Amino acid sequence: MKELSYFKPKEIENRSFEIITQELGRINPNLCDNAVLKRVIHTTADFDYADNLIFSDNAIESGIKALKGKAVILSDTNMTKAGINKTALNKLRCNAECFMSDADVASRAEAEGCTRAKASMDKAVSIKSPLIITIGNAPTALIRVFELIKEGRLAPCLVVGVPVGFVNVVESKELFLNENPGVPYIIARGRKGGSTVSAAIINALMYEALKI
Amino acid sequence: MKELSYFKPKEIENRSFEIITQELGRINPNLCDNAVLKRVIHTTADFDYADNLIFSDNAIESGIKALKGKAVILSDTNMTKAGINKTALNKLRCNAECFMSDADVASRAEAEGCTRAKASMDKAVSIKSPLIITIGNAPTALIRVFELIKEGRLAPCLVVGVPVGFVNVVESKELFLNENPGVPYIIARGRKGGSTVSAAIINALMYEALKI
Repeated sequence: MKELSYFKPKEIENRSFEIITQELGRINPNLCDNAVLKRVIHTTADFDYADNLIFSDNAIESGIKALKGKAVILSDTNMTKAGINKTALNKLRCNAECFMSDADVASRAEAEGCTRAKASMDKAVSIKSPLIITIGNAPTALIRVFELIKEGRLAPCLVVGVPVGFVNVVESKELFLNENPGVPYIIARGRKGGSTVSAAIINALMYEALKI
Repeated sequence: MKELSYFKPKEIENRSFEIITQELGRINPNLCDNAVLKRVIHTTADFDYADNLIFSDNAIESGIKALKGKAVILSDTNMTKAGINKTALNKLRCNAECFMSDADVASRAEAEGCTRAKASMDKAVSIKSPLIITIGNAPTALIRVFELIKEGRLAPCLVVGVPVGFVNVVESKELFLNENPGVPYIIARGRKGGSTVSAAIINALMYEALKI
């Protein structure tokens, strides 16, 4: 039992990525270089993402460029914000934001009879920095982002669309996959996703940005 | 698209649980009453938990009793702490804690060459309130909890053991499943789990506690 508990964090992570790369190689060797996918599998232990995680052209490049340009990373949950690596964030001089608990968002949602997640995305139009939006929970937020892009009111450098669940989740993702939004995206097709997946994708992109 | 984005949160949740109950019924009708399992599936969209989520005798009852007795809920990640429903927590007059960012935990981990997660569990022995420990990330934390229980230094009312990953994760959970720890537990057998699963289990127990 002692041997189990005295591992060091970096050793654990390295060994985990070796196992992931090995098992991913059996599914599709072409995916073994995808640092974002591997970190999502590291976070979920779910190899379904080898099939489900869809990258638009230049999604990773555009995300990294934004992160090297003092981006704001806007999420739809405080869990994702909590899961974003603060050391990497500070090194890159980026900011993580979540408007879900803001009073003006709550009152707007109440007035419009919509989710706070949706109202929190309306607030994003005021952000002037390079913007990465990452949605790990609420399909209503992802749908609203799509609408704002189509209306020309929002032009994020990257949209990470990985809400999880059973109602409108698949549909919100298919909007991006079927009706080209005109911005780079990473989408977890199907029902799966979540705040940990959302944070893992941002962390993977930050680690890549710090290597360059 | 408008119809998709104007759903109300409560309607979305109710419809989600209807779908989950229906699909779970096809896997095993006996599981349809398990509010904890259903909330985990709601959070992950992953029906593997129908097989993987293992409850010791009285786990749910013991968790609810602790939550009605002003429990401290100690997690191994700030993500789980962020994901615990604060309205329910305040109604029950419970507290959520995570020691991962504490300076004394960092220096202890440095001195012992162990993970901060493990060191954060050593700090739990000072908690006097009814204690629920929930591990969504670090197997080293779960292993340390097992050791502290066996040494008679920790007697939690419930251990939620749902770390995720590839190194020592399965082994840390099998400790609880194979060598009866003598305390109630909920364990996600296998590699899967995570901070969202950890928070979902606590939230489900809190919602049940508030019904009684």
